[in-house]
Amino acid sequence: MDRSAFLKRLAEYGGLARDTLLEHLPDGEPRAHLYQPMREFCARSGKGLRPALLIATCRAFGGQLEDALTSAAALELLHNAFLIHDDIQDQSESRRGVPCLHAELGAPLAINAGDAMMASAFRLLRRNVADLGPETAWRVFDEFDHLVAESLEGQAIELGWIRDNDLSVGPSDYLRMTLKKTCWYSFIHPCRIGALIARPDGVRLDDFDSFGFLLGAAFQIRDDVLNLTGSRERYGKEIFGDIYEGKRTLMLTRLAGLVDQSDRERLSRLLALPRSRRSEADVAWVFGAMKRHDCVAYAHNAAASLVDGARTAFHSAFAEASGEDRDFVAHCLDFMTERDD
Amino acid sequence: MDRSAFLKRLAEYGGLARDTLLEHLPDGEPRAHLYQPMREFCARSGKGLRPALLIATCRAFGGQLEDALTSAAALELLHNAFLIHDDIQDQSESRRGVPCLHAELGAPLAINAGDAMMASAFRLLRRNVADLGPETAWRVFDEFDHLVAESLEGQAIELGWIRDNDLSVGPSDYLRMTLKKTCWYSFIHPCRIGALIARPDGVRLDDFDSFGFLLGAAFQIRDDVLNLTGSRERYGKEIFGDIYEGKRTLMLTRLAGLVDQSDRERLSRLLALPRSRRSEADVAWVFGAMKRHDCVAYAHNAAASLVDGARTAFHSAFAEASGEDRDFVAHCLDFMTERDD
Repeated sequence: MDRSAFLKRLAEYGGLARDTLLEHLPDGEPRAHLYQPMREFCARSGKGLRPALLIATCRAFGGQLEDALTSAAALELLHNAFLIHDDIQDQSESRRGVPCLHAELGAPLAINAGDAMMASAFRLLRRNVADLGPETAWRVFDEFDHLVAESLEGQAIELGWIRDNDLSVGPSDYLRMTLKKTCWYSFIHPCRIGALIARPDGVRLDDFDSFGFLLGAAFQIRDDVLNLTGSRERYGKEIFGDIYEGKRTLMLTRLAGLVDQSDRERLSRLLALPRSRRSEADVAWVFGAMKRHDCVAYAHNAAASLVDGARTAFHSAFAEASGEDRDFVAHCLDFMTERDD
Repeated sequence: MDRSAFLKRLAEYGGLARDTLLEHLPDGEPRAHLYQPMREFCARSGKGLRPALLIATCRAFGGQLEDALTSAAALELLHNAFLIHDDIQDQSESRRGVPCLHAELGAPLAINAGDAMMASAFRLLRRNVADLGPETAWRVFDEFDHLVAESLEGQAIELGWIRDNDLSVGPSDYLRMTLKKTCWYSFIHPCRIGALIARPDGVRLDDFDSFGFLLGAAFQIRDDVLNLTGSRERYGKEIFGDIYEGKRTLMLTRLAGLVDQSDRERLSRLLALPRSRRSEADVAWVFGAMKRHDCVAYAHNAAASLVDGARTAFHSAFAEASGEDRDFVAHCLDFMTERDD
């Protein structure tokens, strides 16, 4: 599968999930303060990577697209709920190239819209009972329970580090947090749920865990690197946003372990400031220090090793899968290394 | 049933629901930034009115306490999730006599804890399938879906009014918003779910709708009045907080309809300020205007009429109920008129 075929399928599956979720999101009153912004947020073009991975895995193991759609749409809804709250928590400004929802609506209404999005995801998921039968639907619920809990725990860990201005966080802490915050819901469970729907008793779901972890960690690191080196236009968020937010990225955790005492104190002082008081010069100093200590190159290499590991794990986890959808999942590995948005 | 027997039963049922929910909330890591504050927030003594109403209605219609506990606990969890986000949205300072969760943890971690609380409520609710059988459990889910959607829609309406500094909101808009924001989840559905669990096919659930609406609206108005006239110590929140927040209470909607053009402009200017820029003198002026225009007395009378209506609705909705639990629900009516915290 070449890149353009991959992107075409990604857009197709992501679009199907988006259509399904929009079909099930209310479209009435209160329109201006709730349902319209929710619908607009969901309709904005995200990559749709999570639903696409779920659908492709399902089909690669012989399942039907229709059987995977509800779960894919629910997952995308949940992802959107996370993004809305995440942007408030991080005080981000833009997302997908436009202002964040809280920048448009104010934080109170945006928190509420995120809540409604999460509740809609759980509601939508219940349709699986009629479509897949109670037993499989129940197991999909269990998968969702786990991915929601892990994501919120990971988010708590990351936000806690920022709040406590914790500079003792090392690269392995970062990877553990990323597993929880990103990998379960974005990579591991999409594969698990897709395979579960395709073959309720025929696939060992735990086999997807290392694949999803390695791929997801590479994805997150790449995302963090793009935040430093990407173009705002393609990336859709503000460049250096992570440094303004004080996010403990792999680069920052690496830097904190390498700087001398005086730079460490400067770093700590700077990160202790509220976001709004961090100056452009401060942020440039942090980025400069990262470059001096080769932190970006370090992150690039870490991501590349993770992708290598993910490739090995893929062959084992997808040994019994076949067809173009298997190729699609395989191409996700290349996509991670190539992506610039 | 006298007041002390009512309060004893309220504490008993509320306590049982709290114990149940705490039993099902995780107690591990990340402790400091997620599960400990969640558990502490839930363990703080709320009145437990919602779970008590659910349990009492179930028992009054011949159901078993054990069968109602899961739903009661899930409802209380959801209520706590709402409170945490509500306090952030309103920029409230204290709740149940102690600082709000976001004042302790910061808004980012508090948003996340509220999300985890909502997800836990949905997770807990699924236990009903094993305990009540899939059919009844499914209907309880439908009840929850509705109450969640209504509450978030009501919240959107209220926050939208504040955001748009809408002074055209009248008392009937206020009542419609209160039905959505408060009555469904706090009064109507606790009765409906309790009766549904007791007699899956024996009670017309819609009969509880007017009772719960009238009682709930009285409760909310009383709550709003206490915010103006209560003692902070008993009430647990900051007095005049609603005016600082610009909340469209019954008193404010009444006032906006009565003031002359110049006072209306002053009111509008004052409410357009961000909360932090509203001065004590501004707030005192609003309260003074409310008193001059008898808005508090108006609200008192409205609440009393609503309680009268609720009493009539009670006799019809609870005609087939019996025993001390029926008396407990009946006493809720007196409790609404007497409550001072």
